[in-house]
Amino acid sequence: MKENKYDDPEFFSAYAGMTRSKLGLAGAGEWPELEKLLPDFSNKRVLDLGCGYGWHCAYAAAHGAHSVLGVDISAKMLDEAARRNGGSNIEYRRAAMEDLVFAEGSFDLVLSSLALHYVRDYPKMIRNISEWLAPNGAFIFSTEHPVFTARGDQDWYRDAQGNILHFPVDRYFDEGEREAVFLGQKVIKYHRTLTTLLGVLLENGFLLRAVVEPQPPQTLRHLPEMQNELRRPMMLLVSAVKQQ
Amino acid sequence: MKENKYDDPEFFSAYAGMTRSKLGLAGAGEWPELEKLLPDFSNKRVLDLGCGYGWHCAYAAAHGAHSVLGVDISAKMLDEAARRNGGSNIEYRRAAMEDLVFAEGSFDLVLSSLALHYVRDYPKMIRNISEWLAPNGAFIFSTEHPVFTARGDQDWYRDAQGNILHFPVDRYFDEGEREAVFLGQKVIKYHRTLTTLLGVLLENGFLLRAVVEPQPPQTLRHLPEMQNELRRPMMLLVSAVKQQ
Repeated sequence: MKENKYDDPEFFSAYAGMTRSKLGLAGAGEWPELEKLLPDFSNKRVLDLGCGYGWHCAYAAAHGAHSVLGVDISAKMLDEAARRNGGSNIEYRRAAMEDLVFAEGSFDLVLSSLALHYVRDYPKMIRNISEWLAPNGAFIFSTEHPVFTARGDQDWYRDAQGNILHFPVDRYFDEGEREAVFLGQKVIKYHRTLTTLLGVLLENGFLLRAVVEPQPPQTLRHLPEMQNELRRPMMLLVSAVKQQ
Repeated sequence: MKENKYDDPEFFSAYAGMTRSKLGLAGAGEWPELEKLLPDFSNKRVLDLGCGYGWHCAYAAAHGAHSVLGVDISAKMLDEAARRNGGSNIEYRRAAMEDLVFAEGSFDLVLSSLALHYVRDYPKMIRNISEWLAPNGAFIFSTEHPVFTARGDQDWYRDAQGNILHFPVDRYFDEGEREAVFLGQKVIKYHRTLTTLLGVLLENGFLLRAVVEPQPPQTLRHLPEMQNELRRPMMLLVSAVKQQ
């Protein structure tokens, strides 16, 4: 069973309070780095896996995409997406990304923002994405960094007074399910090594264009949640191109 | 000044006691994974940066290399290399790899085993390696993993009884010099993010073929120093090809 945490009212409400939910792309620490990786959208058929509030879908449409399909497992997220980021060439569809079926070469660009760490079978997902992409199609995604997902609790290690000492890494090569605490609730995520994250892309015919661990921009560093973001990597951005 | 720790008698003697020094490639935990990345050596002109005892030079020569040049800053290491791994088409040269000068396209393959983390100016080193390589030449290296180098002390975090709790990550985005403790002595190493390690290669026209965090093979897991090697990544192996 795929977890649909975002339809839990309490979790959804906590998510709505995050800076990225209130401000959209401008409130997402990784956005300036992710934006640099995005290609020309002109006439592209775009798929957004785990589209959430639809910020990236709206961005793609505003930058000339031919069509945009945003997919998310959460009905509540898609309600927000339709409300905030609708558009005549944007379609929102409710589905777990693992269950999607498309014809070969259906898209020119696949995006996924902070959703792949919820997917259990990464190799199968990447194989599907490779099939769905036309030759020279791009796959650009962010996911939680292996350093961040390895131990499982995704929290700093603190002294008795609660001061942060460092970020703990453990169980790195033990890939699989982790019970993380996110927005005060237990959420199932999947830890994968960097070896797997990149290796599976290479095995599926992708060329690596960029691998970036984003640092929050100066404009957001004053926020309380950004104070320690330079002490450990939290996300990984990857730009890959499907070779012919 | 480039540090030449390996010519310190005490350090050199401690290094000589390591499993990898006594057994060569068979005693190096990462070797089975590194070997998989190596290309056909037939008629290749090979450069080994930081060749140490010369195990990889001998391997290249035994597998058909046209010529092998092993470079190391330490005279003591090169004495061992000549004694253990000499050969008619192997030359050993004493130099800091940062000071080398070669004509464009002088080599078909550049190897470097666990030496790049001693180099202060990584972008300049990679630019040089790219120049020294002929088109389609390969650059295959191992280096310490950013998780391992970030905080600086390169040691586990332990409880009051000395039991390992986890591996601490800190200062990740603060790239530069670290004073690590290795073989009981202080050694200067350089921490770089994964973003930098891979990004500089891409900027210099390299295509990424493989990015691997090696796990020790079953044959070495009984050794005391391997007991915790699955808990955090210690090394990164990269295979890159110079595009025309």
